[in-house]
Amino acid sequence: MKYTEILLEHGGGGLLSNELVTEVFLPHFRNAFLERLEDSAVITVGDKKVCFSTDSYVVDPLFFPGGDIGSLAVHGTVNDLAVCGGKPLCLSAGYIVEEGFPMEDLKKVVRSMAEAAARAGTSIVAGDTKVVPRGAADGLFINTAGIGLVEYEGSLSVRNIRAGDAVIVSGTVGDHGAAILCKREELGFKSEIPSDSAPLNGLVEVILKTTPRVHCMRDATRGGLGAILAEMASQSGTTVVIRERDIPVREDVRGVCEVLGLDPLFLACEGKLALFCPADDAEMILLAMKGHPFGKNAALIGTVAEVGGGRLILQTAVGGSRVVDLPVGELVPRIC
Amino acid sequence: MKYTEILLEHGGGGLLSNELVTEVFLPHFRNAFLERLEDSAVITVGDKKVCFSTDSYVVDPLFFPGGDIGSLAVHGTVNDLAVCGGKPLCLSAGYIVEEGFPMEDLKKVVRSMAEAAARAGTSIVAGDTKVVPRGAADGLFINTAGIGLVEYEGSLSVRNIRAGDAVIVSGTVGDHGAAILCKREELGFKSEIPSDSAPLNGLVEVILKTTPRVHCMRDATRGGLGAILAEMASQSGTTVVIRERDIPVREDVRGVCEVLGLDPLFLACEGKLALFCPADDAEMILLAMKGHPFGKNAALIGTVAEVGGGRLILQTAVGGSRVVDLPVGELVPRIC
Repeated sequence: MKYTEILLEHGGGGLLSNELVTEVFLPHFRNAFLERLEDSAVITVGDKKVCFSTDSYVVDPLFFPGGDIGSLAVHGTVNDLAVCGGKPLCLSAGYIVEEGFPMEDLKKVVRSMAEAAARAGTSIVAGDTKVVPRGAADGLFINTAGIGLVEYEGSLSVRNIRAGDAVIVSGTVGDHGAAILCKREELGFKSEIPSDSAPLNGLVEVILKTTPRVHCMRDATRGGLGAILAEMASQSGTTVVIRERDIPVREDVRGVCEVLGLDPLFLACEGKLALFCPADDAEMILLAMKGHPFGKNAALIGTVAEVGGGRLILQTAVGGSRVVDLPVGELVPRIC
Repeated sequence: MKYTEILLEHGGGGLLSNELVTEVFLPHFRNAFLERLEDSAVITVGDKKVCFSTDSYVVDPLFFPGGDIGSLAVHGTVNDLAVCGGKPLCLSAGYIVEEGFPMEDLKKVVRSMAEAAARAGTSIVAGDTKVVPRGAADGLFINTAGIGLVEYEGSLSVRNIRAGDAVIVSGTVGDHGAAILCKREELGFKSEIPSDSAPLNGLVEVILKTTPRVHCMRDATRGGLGAILAEMASQSGTTVVIRERDIPVREDVRGVCEVLGLDPLFLACEGKLALFCPADDAEMILLAMKGHPFGKNAALIGTVAEVGGGRLILQTAVGGSRVVDLPVGELVPRIC
């Protein structure tokens, strides 16, 4: 590892995050579950399969259009379970709070978590609170972990991705990143952009009911759709080709990106997933997704090519084509 | 809630922590699992019982005699599962790292976590890393969550505590608190006091094999043995009477406490549990515990009285007797 210190980019979900995992964590935590490099570990309990996942949330600001750190923390872990085929059974919540944090804000966050959990059909069954002196943390950080029950008869893994697969995204990309950026920087845009923070387990249930042949799903968070697709291409050793023109982007998100010189492909989502399936199943899955509120803007955006391997290729709107590398880090720190 | 801001004491495992749970978390997260107020939630998966627990670690300093934040984070969650009868199946680890944190220190912590997990017979199967800008966190915080398999045929719950029960502690109390205090304050004592940070699942396995009649166990962490016994007395509505003279305390820990004017009863442990069982089983359990390295100083320290309720009574070494209230907070912030 060439870095002697942790950089912001090590937490950004991009290239340096991957390096940290493969060079620092995996050598010590080596086990079959972590090495799958999926969003959840799948373990066996009796004759059941359960998945297990965790995420910490350090988003700044804590409250933003469309959500807050509490709902985000619930949706994030619910979604990590969902894309592994897990129906959320229960969640834990660990709070690290800075001394002096307003009690009213904590209550708001707790209420928001409870509501988000209820909407996702689950509940928070274990918790912990640590308080650190003023200056030792910035307000409030939350960790959630979750257990999901996997009943899908098919197999969901990046290793299932095959040449010819269709690539589907469940809706507009970059909403969460744009929402946080606009809120944080007080950019003075006329209307607020709401985060897309949402629980995807309902949508996933609809998808997995249509066919047992979905190959792999991931939710696009840090690093956006571009980061997860580049990562999936690299991990599966396939060449993923996507068409920029077909990727759904809200008009206002596109506007913010143009002003700030950002690419919505790499802007964080918090309620969107990418899915790989055999081309023959794509239309049926797309139709099912469009019937769900969190999939109504779902779109077929690409395919897995027959040749080459390990790369994400973007066919640009102007007709060119380029390799998309995994971004080094996240465009903005503390996006989630 | 009379406080408008979070105080350090809200994270101290004492009275204000309890208030926070009952007045802020429980009203929103109301469910049968949290309301049990045990160290883990026990849920059913197929025909198996599993327990689920989480804790965050913000200890300062990160490295101390007898351990570091990594081993502490593994032991803490393993112990929360163990005292609920759970054999640890797997753990998750969530890191919040401050930009600029030394990579070497992170590697040391990760190695320590992997070793601690292996010693406890489990592994870390899911993880997450967030990096926050300099000044937004102090170095490194870790959250662990864990899943345990409960195979104990008896029932472990504070509600099982009965008049006549014996109270056993698994060893010397206050070691961890004294270790952190000495290290942090550079008090200049001649010899270092090692933390008792240790995984208790092996000891618990030995205990639960001897009898299905153990009523309740808790590990003594923040607030020390005094805090958990006062809490258990209050939650069970019984009067717990303990004899100060019989509570094992290391000589050096007693020395530090005398110098600093602290009571070892309220100093944090990280590898000790308190256990309630029928008086008739106490000798057999004690014998079994003494045969295990983490139980060799186990001692019978009290009983549950026939009358009164909800109080912890301390029979002092000098012959008096007093009610021990749940401490307001922890004696030292960032003890774990």
